Amino acid sequence: MTELRKDPITGRWVIVCVDGNRQLPELEPVGTDGDRENCPFCEGHEDRTSPEIFSYRSKGTYPNTPGWFVRCIPNIRPLLSANVDLGRRGLGLFDMMNSIGAHEVIIETPHHDHDFYNSSLEQMEKILSAYQDRIVDLKKDERLKYVLVFKNRGKRAGSLHIPHAHSQIIATPVVPIRVKQELRGTLKYFKMKDRCLFCDLIRQEVSDGVRVVDQNETFLCLVPFAARFPYECWILPKRHQSQFSQMVGGELRDLAQLFKRTFIRLHRVLNDPPFNCMLHDAPNPVPQKGVWQTLDQDYHWHFEVIPRVTRTAGFESGFEWGSGFHINPIPPEKAVEDLRAVSLED
Amino acid sequence: MTELRKDPITGRWVIVCVDGNRQLPELEPVGTDGDRENCPFCEGHEDRTSPEIFSYRSKGTYPNTPGWFVRCIPNIRPLLSANVDLGRRGLGLFDMMNSIGAHEVIIETPHHDHDFYNSSLEQMEKILSAYQDRIVDLKKDERLKYVLVFKNRGKRAGSLHIPHAHSQIIATPVVPIRVKQELRGTLKYFKMKDRCLFCDLIRQEVSDGVRVVDQNETFLCLVPFAARFPYECWILPKRHQSQFSQMVGGELRDLAQLFKRTFIRLHRVLNDPPFNCMLHDAPNPVPQKGVWQTLDQDYHWHFEVIPRVTRTAGFESGFEWGSGFHINPIPPEKAVEDLRAVSLED
Repeated sequence: MTELRKDPITGRWVIVCVDGNRQLPELEPVGTDGDRENCPFCEGHEDRTSPEIFSYRSKGTYPNTPGWFVRCIPNIRPLLSANVDLGRRGLGLFDMMNSIGAHEVIIETPHHDHDFYNSSLEQMEKILSAYQDRIVDLKKDERLKYVLVFKNRGKRAGSLHIPHAHSQIIATPVVPIRVKQELRGTLKYFKMKDRCLFCDLIRQEVSDGVRVVDQNETFLCLVPFAARFPYECWILPKRHQSQFSQMVGGELRDLAQLFKRTFIRLHRVLNDPPFNCMLHDAPNPVPQKGVWQTLDQDYHWHFEVIPRVTRTAGFESGFEWGSGFHINPIPPEKAVEDLRAVSLED
Repeated sequence: MTELRKDPITGRWVIVCVDGNRQLPELEPVGTDGDRENCPFCEGHEDRTSPEIFSYRSKGTYPNTPGWFVRCIPNIRPLLSANVDLGRRGLGLFDMMNSIGAHEVIIETPHHDHDFYNSSLEQMEKILSAYQDRIVDLKKDERLKYVLVFKNRGKRAGSLHIPHAHSQIIATPVVPIRVKQELRGTLKYFKMKDRCLFCDLIRQEVSDGVRVVDQNETFLCLVPFAARFPYECWILPKRHQSQFSQMVGGELRDLAQLFKRTFIRLHRVLNDPPFNCMLHDAPNPVPQKGVWQTLDQDYHWHFEVIPRVTRTAGFESGFEWGSGFHINPIPPEKAVEDLRAVSLED
């Protein structure tokens, strides 16, 4: 059993196991070590996972049988679960609540050896569309404040169990502290300038050009000015949009294209790197007091992609850990040169 | 060459290598892999390090020769250095400055196999006193806003090079974002209650008792209510004190005693764990506008000790990384029981 506890100093939330059996809920789906034969995520092995929440599949095929393109299942040992009361309570200075929420897995492909960089454009679009569908559905639960979509690839990125390509979705009853940091920054800027900070940033980067990796009509891929990690990339909509689910048809195709191209670049420059990819979306649009009140105007969703190629991304020392400083050995402008130079031909 | 770059969204600073030679300044002192014979930190090998900044030593012995108890040297490949101009500048939305600062190493003992848990009380007191001396000295440089003192032990804690016990000191021209988070929380509380949040927390924890690991007249060791990591410990002065350097004679001895006892407990429960230990001190007392104006009343220095015993402390996944959520599999109250049960006898 887990409970959410809030640190009274910083306001960060921790998921604490309170029943003392020391069994940690799994961040990753548990499975065998990944040969195709035993892989629970491969087509034909649908009976080895929990029943699916939904799937995109060929006409005439049935749930939990072959014929799917993208498949969404509950995490078998969820970190947070919908079947408890919120139970907000205090104890002197301390605040806590039950670990309500959702924890799902999106199996991105029926093929054991496909991933973002070698998926078809159609498949990439289906994956992104599945993100949208789950976000829209989970935002209906008014107890939940935020939906996190992320993907870990490779052991150094925290993906310890199943190598078959998958993303995860975690919905939480509080807004995560790192999201609050961004919201605080963008709100401050909006109050000062009446403009979205990300929109201004995009205009400046497109105009400067030196940190732009790639772009199409509606999306931009750049290495941020203060990149924390070598070859860190952000993918942003050029048009102002606070919620990922506001994206419309043609935009989804454009995003899929830029996604695929970005991951081909990273794959070729860094030789199949472990990475984390995370959607930074606006909090769920529940009316509430707080810093994200005006977020339709001041927040701008985007993906952050962090290849895990240096020590500092895995083994953080007390310095980085305690201070929040990062040390990036590769100048962002140099990373851009390398990524741009990649041939996108097969 | 490095430069400091500020992320315009979150305000976090990154140390970026800008000359593109991809040579990362070392967070850790570089040396051979650690056998006593080749260890540059052992007594008798003083000529294998840079000349010392200061040392505590036996009467009649000379700098950079044997006879010392604690020895402070410059890091051979510093992350930040005092010999440049600050050079604050902007570029549209972006802020940057030269990587001014200081980066020093405190060799904690002349003995190759001593560490916090098996040092004498006198030695422990000398180490803490050396921290104080360096902090007081570095705070004289008005360009510097913060002095970070930290120690990494073991490879999983980011200490990759020399196993001989040492701490590090990094002085920076900006206040680190994690410190700002704490300052924001304590200031908010102070404005509301006219009391120090840490003082209230200490009163509540001493009264509750369930998370108190150990205490003496002037110091308290506890496992925090929302501990991020198993067996995370904080060591705090019971009396209100914002700056580590305000501590007086008898307090230093009390702190040394609680330090030694805490590390014996961690050593015995977790079998010589890798750990990070970091001083959370108030920013340098330079008059400035900002959130830490009233810090003499609202901040409270303390040490945070983080054993690195779980995957999440080393291999952070996209979830923890991108959200700032932590997952702690051991209930803090259970960790306290284990730590309390340790016999402190030899």
